[in-house]
Amino acid sequence: MDKRFIEQGSVTSPRGFRAAGVTCGLKVSGKPDVALIVSESPAVAAGVFTTNQVHAYNIDRNRARLADDPHAQAILINAGNANAMTGRQGMEDTEASAAYTAELLGLEPTAVLTSSTGVIGVKLDMAKLRRGIEQAVAALSPDGGLDAATAIMTTDTRPKHLAVQVELDGRTVTIGGMAKGAGMIHPNMATLLAYVTTDAAIRPELLQAATTAATDVSFNMITVDGDTSTSDSLIVLANGQAGNRRLESAEDPDYPVFASALELVLQHLAREIARDGEGATKLLTVQVCGAETEADARQIARTVAGSNLFKCAIFGADPNWGRIAAAAGRAGVEFQVQRLNITLNGLPLVQNGEPLDFDHDDAVERLKRDEIVVDLDLQSGAGQATAWGCDLTLDYVKINAEYFT
Amino acid sequence: MDKRFIEQGSVTSPRGFRAAGVTCGLKVSGKPDVALIVSESPAVAAGVFTTNQVHAYNIDRNRARLADDPHAQAILINAGNANAMTGRQGMEDTEASAAYTAELLGLEPTAVLTSSTGVIGVKLDMAKLRRGIEQAVAALSPDGGLDAATAIMTTDTRPKHLAVQVELDGRTVTIGGMAKGAGMIHPNMATLLAYVTTDAAIRPELLQAATTAATDVSFNMITVDGDTSTSDSLIVLANGQAGNRRLESAEDPDYPVFASALELVLQHLAREIARDGEGATKLLTVQVCGAETEADARQIARTVAGSNLFKCAIFGADPNWGRIAAAAGRAGVEFQVQRLNITLNGLPLVQNGEPLDFDHDDAVERLKRDEIVVDLDLQSGAGQATAWGCDLTLDYVKINAEYFT
Repeated sequence: MDKRFIEQGSVTSPRGFRAAGVTCGLKVSGKPDVALIVSESPAVAAGVFTTNQVHAYNIDRNRARLADDPHAQAILINAGNANAMTGRQGMEDTEASAAYTAELLGLEPTAVLTSSTGVIGVKLDMAKLRRGIEQAVAALSPDGGLDAATAIMTTDTRPKHLAVQVELDGRTVTIGGMAKGAGMIHPNMATLLAYVTTDAAIRPELLQAATTAATDVSFNMITVDGDTSTSDSLIVLANGQAGNRRLESAEDPDYPVFASALELVLQHLAREIARDGEGATKLLTVQVCGAETEADARQIARTVAGSNLFKCAIFGADPNWGRIAAAAGRAGVEFQVQRLNITLNGLPLVQNGEPLDFDHDDAVERLKRDEIVVDLDLQSGAGQATAWGCDLTLDYVKINAEYFT
Repeated sequence: MDKRFIEQGSVTSPRGFRAAGVTCGLKVSGKPDVALIVSESPAVAAGVFTTNQVHAYNIDRNRARLADDPHAQAILINAGNANAMTGRQGMEDTEASAAYTAELLGLEPTAVLTSSTGVIGVKLDMAKLRRGIEQAVAALSPDGGLDAATAIMTTDTRPKHLAVQVELDGRTVTIGGMAKGAGMIHPNMATLLAYVTTDAAIRPELLQAATTAATDVSFNMITVDGDTSTSDSLIVLANGQAGNRRLESAEDPDYPVFASALELVLQHLAREIARDGEGATKLLTVQVCGAETEADARQIARTVAGSNLFKCAIFGADPNWGRIAAAAGRAGVEFQVQRLNITLNGLPLVQNGEPLDFDHDDAVERLKRDEIVVDLDLQSGAGQATAWGCDLTLDYVKINAEYFT
């Protein structure tokens, strides 16, 4: 049941996956902007996509593809241009990108899924992207995972990737992942780009169920700025090359091992995205317990983690716990204030709804740490949940007030 | 039917109202911090209060008072301390404040409503407040409206007040108002402190109905930072001294005249609160039309006005309309993207879901104005709504990252 982390693990850590990250000029910065992940053999595929009504055509295409046949063999991702709100041309460009990638890889176009991230409403430079696809196919490597994780970054300050191994049916199964986040991050389905590969053998419906469940306790519990993106996607490919007996149902004794490892991978990526939110200097973890239901706990945790006022207080190391209480109170959940306990990085501030005397200087020192943990106990039930966020800083405003050109 | 604005109008513009604003030391800045509004004769009273589960005891007390008997004669307001999350002591302090004010005014304690705004979780300094009440009672004046509007300010940069006159039943009826806002401003009931006085004669239930309806198209449509306060209150007093035939029902031909004037007063105060949001440099108006229902239009207007990313873009005069579309898309309303039109300060940017070519420099110049108007047309129905907000600036973060001590 033990999980083992692989040093510098990535989407190429599982057997049978190659990847690449190259530069084609879509990013004005001249940084890598095209990533490609390819499985040697057809893989079972699952996905979770943005709920935003305004979304890129690739979201519709991926959703339709997976609904039609939950298998795929390659994922093409470009950064620097979201190809969203680009009308009919945007649709044609997405189809052409998938078709060209498929052609160079000797696959059917339906075997290629695609994602785009970057500015909205600007048409893709297809001449550049075609060159990028050619370069990426040529650069595919079993060690290419870190290059791919780097190429999908936008305002991220560092690539996010990991790989974990577990034993299933006596075989070593590896799950690798990469993600990008930074801005427009807010819960409601996968709120970012994230790609997970595994060599586990698993039934398509079960992979989708495991992915959806793990998303609910990871990507759906992070917020950077309350803005849900138009392109959020999580795609999981499972090529079965680990050789384990195929996981067929949630009753399989090996399923919880796999599901728990997948959850660990998604939670790690989600937390790293919150920590690396635009302008962020601190990771905020909000743990709610004692709620009447898990849904109540989730709602309160997410609301506190998303409060602009509290996020500013964290940036300024200001132990203004009234903002925690006020955010909890507007979460749309009924609770008894006279039972509320609040603890900030281990320091109790409120007990049974009454303010406690606390050492102000001690509280300020605790708030200067890189990680801020808020505990809210409603003392009313067994519902609990954890949400992650970050502070709201001067740099967040600077990053997002600059011209997009 | 014409409405007439009174120059420097305030809560003391209607007949029979006196007010005061004095300094008792609750604000560390040494600025005025106690306001008192008194009607010479018993007044019909209506109110709208915060929906936040965590709220000050005065919210419970005012709500219970108005439910028990919708009349009142005085409102005591202190700034510098919200007296929220202060436990049993907070309840006792609120009751004592009302009782002491009533005693000095020769009224029953039940005739006095109270509000507090400021830091949460710190006990009131009752010695200071008692001195403040004494000073305020001594300073009551028919010209005290501006002093009162000044004393309720927290991070507001200017007092907000006005008065409007209409003819009802051949008599001149005056409606005066004052409000404070700045931070923790987000729709859901009255999200701020606002006080309205009028000399109109009106049935209590009808005053409450008019107040609730006008709140829905004013205070419930503004957002500064998405944080709903623990103390938000709107209280309306109507003392009948204008001598008009009492308004008994919504069918009275004079009722729409009164209701429309009340709406104008509340919308003016709401817009001024948005314009003077913490750190704000620009007023944002989001007008949605063509939605299937008014509720849909309200939801989209509020979501766009509250988008951190778009608010940053306005601060930076960045015509990044993709953030408008993305915010509309996550509002929780289904609509057809291919019918969406977006116009920014008169410049069409998106038509039928397709990006238009536009002059980028022209767009930047338009975004440098003090007032930004976004029009979204969904071309699908008759639902429309307007929301107000402001830009998200470096100063917002600075103001809210500072220690509260």
